[in-house]
Amino acid sequence: MRLGSTSRVKIQRVQGTRLRARGDLVATEEPMEIRVIFATEGRLQAHSVAVTMRTPGSDFELAAGFQLTEGIIHSGDDILRITRRLTKNVEVPMLRMRTEPSARHEHNTINVYLRAGVEFDPQLLMRNFYTTSSCGVCGRASLEALHIQGCPTVAQDRPRVRAEAIVRLPGALREAQAVFSKTGGLHAAGLFDAEGNLVTLREDVGRHNAMDKLIGRHVVNGDLPLSDHLVVLSGRASWELLQKALIAGIPMVVAVGAPSSLAVDLAQEFGMTLLGFTQGDGFNIYAGGDRVLTST
Amino acid sequence: MRLGSTSRVKIQRVQGTRLRARGDLVATEEPMEIRVIFATEGRLQAHSVAVTMRTPGSDFELAAGFQLTEGIIHSGDDILRITRRLTKNVEVPMLRMRTEPSARHEHNTINVYLRAGVEFDPQLLMRNFYTTSSCGVCGRASLEALHIQGCPTVAQDRPRVRAEAIVRLPGALREAQAVFSKTGGLHAAGLFDAEGNLVTLREDVGRHNAMDKLIGRHVVNGDLPLSDHLVVLSGRASWELLQKALIAGIPMVVAVGAPSSLAVDLAQEFGMTLLGFTQGDGFNIYAGGDRVLTST
Repeated sequence: MRLGSTSRVKIQRVQGTRLRARGDLVATEEPMEIRVIFATEGRLQAHSVAVTMRTPGSDFELAAGFQLTEGIIHSGDDILRITRRLTKNVEVPMLRMRTEPSARHEHNTINVYLRAGVEFDPQLLMRNFYTTSSCGVCGRASLEALHIQGCPTVAQDRPRVRAEAIVRLPGALREAQAVFSKTGGLHAAGLFDAEGNLVTLREDVGRHNAMDKLIGRHVVNGDLPLSDHLVVLSGRASWELLQKALIAGIPMVVAVGAPSSLAVDLAQEFGMTLLGFTQGDGFNIYAGGDRVLTST
Repeated sequence: MRLGSTSRVKIQRVQGTRLRARGDLVATEEPMEIRVIFATEGRLQAHSVAVTMRTPGSDFELAAGFQLTEGIIHSGDDILRITRRLTKNVEVPMLRMRTEPSARHEHNTINVYLRAGVEFDPQLLMRNFYTTSSCGVCGRASLEALHIQGCPTVAQDRPRVRAEAIVRLPGALREAQAVFSKTGGLHAAGLFDAEGNLVTLREDVGRHNAMDKLIGRHVVNGDLPLSDHLVVLSGRASWELLQKALIAGIPMVVAVGAPSSLAVDLAQEFGMTLLGFTQGDGFNIYAGGDRVLTST
């Protein structure tokens, strides 16, 4: 039984030599198709840009955030409207699914209508897909490509955050994770201000989706770049998550887990702050230590 | 400085009010391009099928495993040879990178030569990419599509594994994770036999890559399907990991962390065993409990 972001399942719990049947909650994982609807030669066309495995919830924000971090749009102003389900009278010129979407899948199709005048080139996107996509399999980790894309440089003089505030962030994130406590299966991304107050929290089975949902919230709000904020990640910091923070103008990434080598490279290259292993009363500074205020 | 699967970085460690500089190891994350080299009309053609962010090591196995789990090949027999670096006199008809690969990136190009007679259709692959790709952003989670693809059904009568052996698996996996202990940043996938003996261990910053490396090892060995084995995952079990196990014929997946709803659906649909939260002396059975032998 599906209950939004969680699903109820029947399990058997084995503990030592005991085995008993009981109900359990698992994080819901479902496909969501993201499409761009754009006008070309006076006609509306639909182009499928991704099918992502995501936890239902904040679907419009996920679509908006994905389109920003993939370079399809550059601000919320580029979006006319976002709708759910398949739309009639729209041509799907390529990438037709082999299996027709079921009723359930139709519901999970999100259409992002571009405002007139916003350019969209499916061929260019397909190339980008291989060069800069944020997904694990497709990502082209070329730092040069990011430079060429003209990524915004983040604000260098802010935020400044006290170490005492930083060590409290993982606890604040966990407290806010209502769903996490129930299933243990969701990644979280939390946006905090420089004083350590939570601004936005998003969760997903995929860490990249949690980040896109969070960023999408602010795409819709129209308040990018998020120059005075930092993002806290419940898990590890990979290259793709740093890339997304960069595109949203977030100068500081605080991970509870470990960073990868390329995440460190990207943070150093673009003047971002990257902290990892933020646990107990300590953390590691991998890049950009000048944004961290210590009393020593 | 890169040292294979780990990279040495200079960090500052903040602990309470103390701050000190020291060296640290992080998991290496680097792009690797996977290409198919196939003959068409008497000429060799190269087709880029993915650029994956991976931890260096077992690169050939990763390429072979990826091509199997993506449906490009169906056994190790389909592969003539695997080589590293760019090959001259090969046409790259599409998906040229916007930035020319640097020398470092060239080194990370893996060419998989298909044996003569093995069919490869780039257009079909592109459609599959949206329907059944294993990557988080692109995966089309249609169980129907898997049926249509003709996934092998796993052996239903084996393996049979004692509960006492199952609870020891996460510890055995951790002990074998030499790299994990150094960086804390790598996912692991371990193949075990029914008695709980480790057969193959692979690690990566991406859990899908760890799984593809493990499967690729046995693609190269030519001993698929792995009907008498189980795979242990250091983290969570998503749909894509279950899908990869299914394609390799592994009937049983044991996760240290939580499964997603679609992972449970897939395991039930295809008669696989899925265990989660395998910690301490207990675990949850989400599907296929008949492969678990309990003394109760």
